[in-house]
This record gives sequence, C-alpha cells and structure tokens, in this order.
Amino acid sequence: MLIERLALIGVGLIGGSLARALRAAGTCGYVIGQDIDHDRLERAQGLGIIDEGAPDLGTAVAGADAVVVAVPIGAIRAVFAGIRPGLPIRTLVTDVGSVKGAVVAAARALLGEHLPYVVPGHPIVGAERSGVESSSAQLFAGQRVILTPLPETMRSATERVQAMWESAGAEVEVMEADRHDELLAATSHLPHALACALVNAVIRVGGPEAALRYTAGGFGDLTRIASSSPALWRDIFLANREHLFAALTCFRAEIESLREAIAHDDGEAVLASLWDAKTVRDALAAERRSRGLGTSPSRP
Amino acid sequence: MLIERLALIGVGLIGGSLARALRAAGTCGYVIGQDIDHDRLERAQGLGIIDEGAPDLGTAVAGADAVVVAVPIGAIRAVFAGIRPGLPIRTLVTDVGSVKGAVVAAARALLGEHLPYVVPGHPIVGAERSGVESSSAQLFAGQRVILTPLPETMRSATERVQAMWESAGAEVEVMEADRHDELLAATSHLPHALACALVNAVIRVGGPEAALRYTAGGFGDLTRIASSSPALWRDIFLANREHLFAALTCFRAEIESLREAIAHDDGEAVLASLWDAKTVRDALAAERRSRGLGTSPSRP
Repeated sequence: MLIERLALIGVGLIGGSLARALRAAGTCGYVIGQDIDHDRLERAQGLGIIDEGAPDLGTAVAGADAVVVAVPIGAIRAVFAGIRPGLPIRTLVTDVGSVKGAVVAAARALLGEHLPYVVPGHPIVGAERSGVESSSAQLFAGQRVILTPLPETMRSATERVQAMWESAGAEVEVMEADRHDELLAATSHLPHALACALVNAVIRVGGPEAALRYTAGGFGDLTRIASSSPALWRDIFLANREHLFAALTCFRAEIESLREAIAHDDGEAVLASLWDAKTVRDALAAERRSRGLGTSPSRP
Repeated sequence: MLIERLALIGVGLIGGSLARALRAAGTCGYVIGQDIDHDRLERAQGLGIIDEGAPDLGTAVAGADAVVVAVPIGAIRAVFAGIRPGLPIRTLVTDVGSVKGAVVAAARALLGEHLPYVVPGHPIVGAERSGVESSSAQLFAGQRVILTPLPETMRSATERVQAMWESAGAEVEVMEADRHDELLAATSHLPHALACALVNAVIRVGGPEAALRYTAGGFGDLTRIASSSPALWRDIFLANREHLFAALTCFRAEIESLREAIAHDDGEAVLASLWDAKTVRDALAAERRSRGLGTSPSRP
C-alpha cells in the first residue's frame, strides 16, 4: 500500500475528497484527521472519511508515513510549526495550497531537516462548494495537480506524492513553485480579483440595485466566485502579491487597449481582440469536454 | 387578442422564443416571419414557430398590427429602412436590441411618422445559446424586459408592448434609453469586455497553453461569454461606445485601488473590497433563487 497511515490536517472539501479518493482506490490504509474545528472532525469521522480524529497536530503526525496539509494558505505556517516537533523523519509532507512560494518559504523556515520529504502541491479544482459534507471521491478525476518540489526534495518523495494523486484520478505536472505562482496569478487569482472589481464597478455605476435588477446569466457566471470567503482570498492575494500585481498590470494593459479602440471607434481592433479571446476560449471548452469536465451545474 | 398578425423580423433564439411564448399565451394569432437566412426561416416554419415566411421585409410588415425586430444591433438600421415603405400607420414597432440609444437614433432617422408607435425594448436574458432550434416559450419567464419609449411614443403603444412581454412571463420596467445604456454598459457590456481581456491577459502571461491547462471552473465561468460572436459584440461595444468607455474607466479605478492595496500589502483594504463584492453578489444569488432562476446547467 502506498500510504499505510495518512495524517490529514484540515478536513474540508479538498482534504475530505482526497481521503475518500485514496480510500476508494486502496491507496491508503488508516486515516487520522486533525482540524481546528472539532465538530467538523467528528462529522468527518461519522461520514467514514477519517478513521480517527486526533486531539492535536503532534498526535496526528506521530507514526504517519504521509502528512497531507489541506488548510487555507493563511494557516500553513501555524500547521508546519505545529507538526514539526512530532514529525517522524522520512514522513512525506505535502499540501494543497494555491500559492506555492509561500508554502516553500514556510517549509524552509520551519521544516528544515524534513525538506527532502516535502512536496508542495496544488490540485486545480473549483472551490465554489466547501465543507467536508460536499467532499467526493471523484473531485479530482481528470483534474490537474501541480507539484513544486524543492531542490532538496528527493525524487522518490515527489514520485510517491505523484502516485498518490494519480490514484485519485488526477493528472500530475511538476514545475517550479515560482512558475506555478505566476501562472495561477493569471488563471485563478486575477479572475477572482476581476469578479470582485466588476461587482464593485457595477455598484458604482448603478447602485446595488443595478447588479440585482439588470444583469443576466453572463454577469452571474462572471461574478459567482466573488461569493467565496473574503478572508481566504485576501490571504491568497497577499501570499502571491508580486505575481498578482504583475498579472493585474498585464490585464490593465488589455483593458487600456480595448478602451482606446472603443474611444477611437476602431471596429477592427475591437474585433481582433474579441476573436483572440474567442479562439482560446473555444479551445478551452473543447479541451474540457474532451476531459469529461464542465458539466457541473452552475449556481445562482 | 392583443396582436392579430405579428411580423417577426429575425427568427433566432430571441425572436423564436418570443413567438413561441406569445402563441402559448394566446397573445398573438398569425405570425409571419422574415430572416436574412432563408433556411432558418424554413426551419422556423417547420418547427411551427411561424405560420409563414415572407420573401422580403415589405411583405412581412404589410397588414401586421405589430412588428418585432429581433436582429443583431448592427442590422437595426437596415431593417428599419427596409420595413418603412410597407409599414402601415399605427402598426406597433418594437425590438430587442441590447443598446437602446442606437435604436432610438435609427428610429428617428428612418421611421419619422411612425414614432408614436415605436417602443424600443430589451429583454435581459443570457445569450450563450443561439439559433431558433434553442428557442423556448419559457425563455423570458421571470426575466426582466426594459422598454425605452421615446417622448413621441404614445402611452397606449408602450402599454401594448408591455402587455405582450408580460404575457410571455417577463417583468417589464420602463426607463430612458440613455439610462438603460448606462446600466447595461456596466452589467452586460463591461463583463463581456472583461471576459475577453482576461483570456487575452492569461495568454500574455502563460501562452494559450496556460488557459487550457491551469484553469479551473472559476475561469471557465468567467470567460464563457468570450465564446460569443465577436462581430455581434463589436457592434454592441461601438453602438454603446460612450457608456462602455465610462464603465471601463470606472472599472479601471477599481482595479487600480486593488492593485495599490496589493502593492502595499494592505490586507484591510483588500478584505474590504472583497467583502463589498461578496455582499452584493450574495444578494444577487438570493434574488435570482427567489425568482426561480439560476439553475441552468453551465457549459464547458
């Protein structure tokens, strides 16, 4: 068995879904969970997602051959600090945080002698739902997971974490943490920033009523993610400050050129910009269909 | 019967759905259709959406007591010019275009003596699907329609068009064309511009591959509308140039303040902005649920 004893720190949608998937695939044996929310830990045990809830981080990781840290990015440092004293040497440590540079920095600061076994990771899945009750063994099927091992990380550690995610149905890619953060700043953090800026701009033009009364499905689709947890996203934005700033700068240039084209009544420039976007967006839709994705119901 | 003989110019998703809804409600009798695409006209007749296809605009409007112009905004002038010679006096003329100032200007230029019977209108429905085959009698149920009568428009004409839309299940609101265009610039045209700018920014940061490989559902939701027809949206953008420019300026200010907050590591400002957006977005979701909307499946 790939993982005999898994310590799962943070039993929410992502952690719960991973535990379900690994159990279903027979990739892991005993699962011991830990969570800042004790009720959630009990519910997860009731749902059969974990075998046991640990009273603290030290107890959770003692004897584990792999630790999966599935907590919000803002809590990574506290968790690393908490697991360190009890962490057996040669125990794999991986996580699911959406900003990898911050995780690498926290690992360097707090898990020094464990770095050969540290494999930062990020499953790229939508997070519109949340909570262990929404977890599913199928959440990662056909989805991509990026691993960003450190130079110190042993190749065998990366391979084991890769095998873990593949057993959950994911497609794994390995890259440098900084490249991950640059890409995700554009593909995930920037969209979130825009959704929020759009809602706020509509309020400024038409008052809160405008967003409620004069919008159709397109606006609803665009701004759905603006309903996510503000504190969680503040932490992501600040953890990926530099790359998000660069992505915003790049986006601002796109907006500027469109704004110029509109000001000058330049139909050809507007059309070219719309076609560029459509070409890639259509390819994305085709690619997602080919992976069997994109059929989840949209919410209001 | 509210409308004995309806001339439907443009038999696509919107026109076809309106004809279906009016027939289902018993609001209209005979429907004569006209479309630049002759095949589409035949398909619409085959589907029972229209009773007869007219060979030209003059034939379509002869004897009609109401004309619904359901063509892309870029074709409005040509249609108004085409119907004018055969248009009976006292025949209602309404449309479904997404920019009302342009329709008012076209009506003033081309339908002078008919202005008392001209009632520009705009059903606010998502346009992700298209084509008469996707038309549905339920498309407008619970959705808002804005009417923007001219000062010359007779009150009774506005009331008849309002009754027509209400019989299709829509909620009707009357406002000035300019206010409509200002609001929709923010709630509809700006989101479309952003979706395209976002796709283009992602391509600039990570290449076309990035959009395909490293995006999750949030990006898919945000950019779905970027797959719509570029020519159609170019025409909308240019028809609503001034208000869209103002909305882009307002949006740019939102992006700037977020960018500043990120640059200065100002967590409180970031959090406040995220909370503002979430509050209104949550209210929108609740409002749409209360109207029974927002349950349509999302596409890839």
